[in-house]
Amino acid sequence: MKALHDLTATEIVQAVDEGKTTCEAVVRNCLDHIAAREDAIGAWNFLEPALALEQARIIDRSGRKGALRGVPVGVKDIIDTADMPTEYGTPIHREHRPRIDAACVALTRRAGGIIMGKTVTAEFANRYPGKTRHPMDPTRTPGGSSSGSAAAVGDHMVPLAIGTQTTASNIRPASFCGCVGYRPTWGDIRCHGVMEVAGSLDTLGLIARSVADVALYRDVLVGTKPEPITPHRGGPLRVGFCRTAIWDQCEPHVQVSLEQCARVLAQAGALVSDVTLPDEFTRLEDAQRWISSFEFARNRAWEIDHHWEQISEFLRTHRLRDGMSCSFERYRDARTFAETCRGMMDTFIQDYDVLLTSPVSGEAPVGLNSTGNTSFCAMWTTLHVPAVTLPFFTGPNGLPVGAQFIARRNEDRRLFQAAQWVTEAWERR
Amino acid sequence: MKALHDLTATEIVQAVDEGKTTCEAVVRNCLDHIAAREDAIGAWNFLEPALALEQARIIDRSGRKGALRGVPVGVKDIIDTADMPTEYGTPIHREHRPRIDAACVALTRRAGGIIMGKTVTAEFANRYPGKTRHPMDPTRTPGGSSSGSAAAVGDHMVPLAIGTQTTASNIRPASFCGCVGYRPTWGDIRCHGVMEVAGSLDTLGLIARSVADVALYRDVLVGTKPEPITPHRGGPLRVGFCRTAIWDQCEPHVQVSLEQCARVLAQAGALVSDVTLPDEFTRLEDAQRWISSFEFARNRAWEIDHHWEQISEFLRTHRLRDGMSCSFERYRDARTFAETCRGMMDTFIQDYDVLLTSPVSGEAPVGLNSTGNTSFCAMWTTLHVPAVTLPFFTGPNGLPVGAQFIARRNEDRRLFQAAQWVTEAWERR
Repeated sequence: MKALHDLTATEIVQAVDEGKTTCEAVVRNCLDHIAAREDAIGAWNFLEPALALEQARIIDRSGRKGALRGVPVGVKDIIDTADMPTEYGTPIHREHRPRIDAACVALTRRAGGIIMGKTVTAEFANRYPGKTRHPMDPTRTPGGSSSGSAAAVGDHMVPLAIGTQTTASNIRPASFCGCVGYRPTWGDIRCHGVMEVAGSLDTLGLIARSVADVALYRDVLVGTKPEPITPHRGGPLRVGFCRTAIWDQCEPHVQVSLEQCARVLAQAGALVSDVTLPDEFTRLEDAQRWISSFEFARNRAWEIDHHWEQISEFLRTHRLRDGMSCSFERYRDARTFAETCRGMMDTFIQDYDVLLTSPVSGEAPVGLNSTGNTSFCAMWTTLHVPAVTLPFFTGPNGLPVGAQFIARRNEDRRLFQAAQWVTEAWERR
Repeated sequence: MKALHDLTATEIVQAVDEGKTTCEAVVRNCLDHIAAREDAIGAWNFLEPALALEQARIIDRSGRKGALRGVPVGVKDIIDTADMPTEYGTPIHREHRPRIDAACVALTRRAGGIIMGKTVTAEFANRYPGKTRHPMDPTRTPGGSSSGSAAAVGDHMVPLAIGTQTTASNIRPASFCGCVGYRPTWGDIRCHGVMEVAGSLDTLGLIARSVADVALYRDVLVGTKPEPITPHRGGPLRVGFCRTAIWDQCEPHVQVSLEQCARVLAQAGALVSDVTLPDEFTRLEDAQRWISSFEFARNRAWEIDHHWEQISEFLRTHRLRDGMSCSFERYRDARTFAETCRGMMDTFIQDYDVLLTSPVSGEAPVGLNSTGNTSFCAMWTTLHVPAVTLPFFTGPNGLPVGAQFIARRNEDRRLFQAAQWVTEAWERR
């Protein structure tokens, strides 16, 4: 039998229901694993075992109710928690204790989830990294900005974690750390109590080790009754293989793996065809840059005016410099352009159930000063479409590489159906 | 000469620049007026004269810099301030002191504005009213949820205030209290540090006593260099007179006033024509209800789970009941429908510089248990278009009634040009 900390969220709920374990035992086992591994990985910005255990005992005593009964969850440290500090990845907010839980944290607790602790974020969920190292190779980045969430789930410290994504901050670290990563349709999950990076682009992100788990957790956070993923129906799965205009930035092994995936899916019965995106979409990464920089610089007005010297040199000379130099007209034009492309995408993607594309240029890179290349996510983020990365591939250094699947806006359930189907096809290959 | 508290923001800046007054004298004069009037009106949830005066002295000593140098501003109490409590209109958050200023507050201070205090909001910026009374008739509501902001500006306690709008919460109280009210294009001004009501619809709102003032303050909050309103150019102003499908809910005096306004503008040289909105738009108010209720109920998850008994009966049995009973599909369909209508509106409104329509059904109603009819704003809010209300009319009880002007999304500057033009035409009539 698997160790408790190796179970997925869905498996934990089942084990608890069958009386095979208690919420407290699950949490205790995860804490033991964290204790053994945390020095090497540094996934947590705050972790207080007694607090986690107390939550678990309350769930045990009160009849183990809710869709996430007994499931330990890591929460990115830009998300407010009433019983734990929230520091936004910056010394400016050291030891800050919010008054209330963010909406997503409150909904997690309502569902019986255990908030294990706060996971490391890059500074203000941007690019200047925190202390976290890749769980399989301490010389490499786990990706960012949801660094701790991805490393914690990838190392089996917790089965579920919340991240956020404004550029590539959830899908990319999930790919690097061998997790299932999910970015929802923009706007579906409330961000009240989550530090705003750039509201026109921000979403929460979920990180797990199975498609069923992200689907379950999405229902909890959307605030509706959880429903299992039904099988894909209505003829063969229509997969658009989308190399994108930056295909040549993918390392050769990524190209080979994606080509192989496309073949495997076709052999399993999917209708796989090559797709070329509208030419305009090559300008979306630039639009993303100006939208996010403009909004980010305004959202940080208080920190800029009161704590400029405590902001990293990197942030000051990149994102904030961009944001402060960007005119309103440039920003507005970028936002309008992005909205036009979203309409084109709605039409374009109607011929497919999902697109298959790369979430990253390769394995997690060596070095702890950068969180890697964001280009393979920036366009999809700006299109507001839902995305899933699945841990299908292994790179030349033995590290995970994901396959990213994209669906139409508002079709997150169809995306999960497809993700389930392609996972089964890939495992049967 | 006018008393200092009767000056607009633009006039204060000019008087300060010309050495006719100091920031401290302006603030002191406003405080004196507040002291005389606050017992009757109750516009403020927090006001500490020493704190306001200290800010003014700092601006005086540091060379009176910034576009709002010396201008006193009221801030709706759902907007975070680091040096003042922020209570969100509920006993649940009594004496809460946020860690940092909201982005809009930080940008106001950066521009030399004085945060005078926190203005009364309805509970969670919804409909259960606070203590504020109409400045001209204490038996009447000032409107809501930005009740204190509108009453404070209407009574000349401050020249500028920030409100917010998710349904009618800024334009309606501005109309009732005889102010210039402005709701920006959705998404233009960052809401970081502002309590989220329903993010898909929320915007800040500005309340002032001149069009020049709202234009100035908008530039400050957008975070760009302020530019004066240039005159309307390019032929006669094209005004679409839009009675809307709920015209018969307007009291007769409102109908008469709007008809008169349309005639005056035509006589002044505008091209005025009647317009009928697409039939679909009659369903926008219902869409607004489900979008706002669904999102609001999830944003209040922490308060619902920890302080249910401290939430007003009204909120529990209306907005929260709606939100908790609304399925995700109903919510998503409403959101998608709203987005479709926004696209239709972009096309439809191209033939006009602005639409003329009513912001309210009449004068501020008698009674302090309700904040009035929201239907005349809900549609425009959901369309994400910019709106201005101008204090043109007087009702049968001698109370103000506004004329609302609507422009295309992202054309807030054109809206200000038109508002300036129609104000001059109306004053010359």
